[in-house]
Amino acid sequence: MRLAELSRRSGVSVASIKYYIREGLLPPGRLVAATQAEYDEQHLRRLRLIRALIGVRGLSVGATREVLGALSEHPEDVHRVLGLALGAIRLRDEPPPDSAGQAEVDALVAEMGWQVHRDAPARADLAGTLAPLLRLGALPDWRALLPYAELAERTAVLDLDRLDGAEDPLELAERAVLLTVLLEPALLALRRMAQEHESARRYAGATPARPGADADTGADTDADGTGVPSAR
Amino acid sequence: MRLAELSRRSGVSVASIKYYIREGLLPPGRLVAATQAEYDEQHLRRLRLIRALIGVRGLSVGATREVLGALSEHPEDVHRVLGLALGAIRLRDEPPPDSAGQAEVDALVAEMGWQVHRDAPARADLAGTLAPLLRLGALPDWRALLPYAELAERTAVLDLDRLDGAEDPLELAERAVLLTVLLEPALLALRRMAQEHESARRYAGATPARPGADADTGADTDADGTGVPSAR
Repeated sequence: MRLAELSRRSGVSVASIKYYIREGLLPPGRLVAATQAEYDEQHLRRLRLIRALIGVRGLSVGATREVLGALSEHPEDVHRVLGLALGAIRLRDEPPPDSAGQAEVDALVAEMGWQVHRDAPARADLAGTLAPLLRLGALPDWRALLPYAELAERTAVLDLDRLDGAEDPLELAERAVLLTVLLEPALLALRRMAQEHESARRYAGATPARPGADADTGADTDADGTGVPSAR
Repeated sequence: MRLAELSRRSGVSVASIKYYIREGLLPPGRLVAATQAEYDEQHLRRLRLIRALIGVRGLSVGATREVLGALSEHPEDVHRVLGLALGAIRLRDEPPPDSAGQAEVDALVAEMGWQVHRDAPARADLAGTLAPLLRLGALPDWRALLPYAELAERTAVLDLDRLDGAEDPLELAERAVLLTVLLEPALLALRRMAQEHESARRYAGATPARPGADADTGADTDADGTGVPSAR
């Protein structure tokens, strides 16, 4: 295909494609005339992965080049491809993990029987969020996270099921990045909606009768949508 | 208690406490001398909630004043207190929800049988994240979210269980904000770690034998921690 079609099918602008070729992220097309190059499906897959790593996961061009290089070393190793795409394998230019909260995370990983690389950034992310959770009293101790970890395990099974059937490592890596990163805000929104539903289920019927002006403070889906505090 | 003790026990600086009193978020203390005021446990609880709403949920002083005012109207209505603290009930100065993706969210809420207010910001959040998920092919359709919604429901049950036993509405609201907002990055980190474990379980043993230099690309917890791409 020509450059214009590659741009259309990948959703990446012609200028960006040329930039990625100059930066060595994408191999140049096959020259068919002095000023014309042809691109194939492999270019398209690689370009989609580049867009996912830079545009969705937020990697720098340098880090993306490193992931693409590492991916090409053992493309048959699905676990390694996923680790590189999702950031379970730390790149050289990422900061070392903070050590506060690390002992609690180690204990949780051991209790769950999880195989998680010692350097995985998610370990440091969890360690860093545990400190304020414990200090401000939102959780009594790290063991309170165990039921949440069990639900995370089921979520990960859903995720990996969705990645099943990717045709090549570039496609697998792209789908892994999109599914993991783009789904994050959706999962948080689902939790907030489910909290509201669970709160309604437990408490909305149990309160004393209130004046009509407050009838839409409940969580009924057919509320008139005027917004509750607007009655103030 | 004196101002200094209120500051120490709440973790809020004396200057901030005085600012909150001037802004009408916190009632002034009871004057016991011309230049000395006394504060009680109710001040402490209210101050902790203010810190959670401003410092953790990121509300403005104006929005916090509105939540505190609305909370005091029906403090016995637990569902309403939770809705105000968590943002299920939209405040006047928040933007109206975007309508793209709204139909899919409506369908999902109906399918789950959830009671979620039509104006809940989480609906708009989900609608906004669904568009790129579908457009980039990370999910085939909104129904692919249903198993995730079921896990979100179980997560919300854990959340509400943790809030059980709060002694008064201010404490309940504070704990709800801390648990919901602070736990978000922890839940995302747990998902990433669980993905790595699930990937190891499915794929790490199934790949062909690799040279010794790559032995730590697996997810074994006792890896030497040198980081994989450093071998490049």
